[in-house]
Amino acid sequence: MSASILVVGSVAFDSLKTPFGEADEILGGSATYFSVAASYFAPVRVVAVVGSDFPDKHLEVFRKHSIDTTGLAQVQGKTFRWKGEYGYDLNEAKTLDTQLNVFETFKPVIPESYRSSEYVFLGNIDPELQLSVLEQIKRPRVVACDSMNFWIKGKPEAVKRTIAHVDILIINDAETRMLANEPNLVRAANRIMAMGPKTLIVKRGEYGVLMFNGRSVFGAPAFPLEDVYDPTGAGDSFAGGFMGALAHAGDVNERVFRRGIIYGSVMASFNVEQFGMHRLTNLQRDQIDDRFRQFKALTHFEEV
Amino acid sequence: MSASILVVGSVAFDSLKTPFGEADEILGGSATYFSVAASYFAPVRVVAVVGSDFPDKHLEVFRKHSIDTTGLAQVQGKTFRWKGEYGYDLNEAKTLDTQLNVFETFKPVIPESYRSSEYVFLGNIDPELQLSVLEQIKRPRVVACDSMNFWIKGKPEAVKRTIAHVDILIINDAETRMLANEPNLVRAANRIMAMGPKTLIVKRGEYGVLMFNGRSVFGAPAFPLEDVYDPTGAGDSFAGGFMGALAHAGDVNERVFRRGIIYGSVMASFNVEQFGMHRLTNLQRDQIDDRFRQFKALTHFEEV
Repeated sequence: MSASILVVGSVAFDSLKTPFGEADEILGGSATYFSVAASYFAPVRVVAVVGSDFPDKHLEVFRKHSIDTTGLAQVQGKTFRWKGEYGYDLNEAKTLDTQLNVFETFKPVIPESYRSSEYVFLGNIDPELQLSVLEQIKRPRVVACDSMNFWIKGKPEAVKRTIAHVDILIINDAETRMLANEPNLVRAANRIMAMGPKTLIVKRGEYGVLMFNGRSVFGAPAFPLEDVYDPTGAGDSFAGGFMGALAHAGDVNERVFRRGIIYGSVMASFNVEQFGMHRLTNLQRDQIDDRFRQFKALTHFEEV
Repeated sequence: MSASILVVGSVAFDSLKTPFGEADEILGGSATYFSVAASYFAPVRVVAVVGSDFPDKHLEVFRKHSIDTTGLAQVQGKTFRWKGEYGYDLNEAKTLDTQLNVFETFKPVIPESYRSSEYVFLGNIDPELQLSVLEQIKRPRVVACDSMNFWIKGKPEAVKRTIAHVDILIINDAETRMLANEPNLVRAANRIMAMGPKTLIVKRGEYGVLMFNGRSVFGAPAFPLEDVYDPTGAGDSFAGGFMGALAHAGDVNERVFRRGIIYGSVMASFNVEQFGMHRLTNLQRDQIDDRFRQFKALTHFEEV
């Protein structure tokens, strides 16, 4: 039995437009993508808030993946809504509309039954709320954390206070440079690790991932796909696969972290193949391991 | 004894400015970077043109690396000059000035002693001149070719006529999308391979390299460096290391190509560490193999 993973983040209705199609008010949010991706590896417990408009068919997605929703509060009001559009390069979303709704007053409350979770992922929410989560729980084995340019620019000191307490920070390359105020990625990574995180994972979208820990660097390309329909949730799917693989392995060491990076990349690669959560909610475990092996074939070369 | 490599390209005076320093009229050009990088692996024969202002100290660089300069024509007039500037991201050069000078009327003439070269690299020059090189030589074992947006936009038909005769096309990701008129890189690669090249190598700067051959894809990250001073010549150093490793290995198969990609990435990573050719002209063979092993450490993960 794998150790449990606690995730705090958003559950949302996303309206998306890409050059290949559009979708209106489909299930999304960082906690949702993370939970479903991680659920293929270990039990997941979610903390988030939804409004009174949240339909039962969406709760069914969590149930199907045996995700514990004790901490998913349903309150009066409307669910968080996000509307975004992608161009042909599919690299960055243009946000067209954000309605925080019930998320505006969200204060994560960690249920008693969650408090001894060994693996914790702080999804991309206000860094002060992320810290409040850590204050409510026993010291977990591994805490990983996401953030974004909005918080790094708007609340840099709060971001720094929070990441001082996390083991692994998972952000993209532009955020890495912004947080460290340093254009060279290796130097930026070193500066950020001096702020607290022992490990920094830098997401580079279609270019893959770099992991720094002060002793070594690990680099993995993204899986080259012929059909990329919707990059929404790729980062959270990556984090879900990564933390899931860690919780499943049980050990905390570089070998496990590197395999976690590949499992994270596998989940992100599946996620972008179809709109919204569609691909992620319809996977078989052996398809995941098959693609892991394809990553090995993608990156293998012989020694000198 | 490794097979010989023939390279056709430019030999130039470069004036460079980066956020870390500047240099005036230093030795540069695609054929120069390629030749020196390849010279660590196999004998190199260069075809290019320089003016009457080309100093002996620059010829000394070719001699030091035992590069055959029978095909390096010196003619009346001034040597090709290029002036460029890089911002903090060091990703793309802004060309400030180009003076073609003797390069304007360059018609590559392949010396008799070069005509049975087994490995040929067509540096980034007019695609019609690239084709004229192939018409002057015996069918080599491997022909690789570079190009750029300037030719793809300006002479698309000539580019297509030339690449129909090459085995390996080595271009960057923007050029790949432009040549194929397709935003998805995997689809673009397939379209380009249908134009002739059996192998497409896509350079992605600081993000590394992808190699397509229709049966498999190989991906390698770039080496993460704390000190990147000058990216000039990185692509040609990559091509030099790649073709050098092929010529040294002798065999033509995927195993050799993948190792070639890593040797190319090694040479590009050294090249950007110092201004101009400085690092590339001061390397020991064991430093190259050491960094190859570091690439293995950078990318290694265990099987499922």
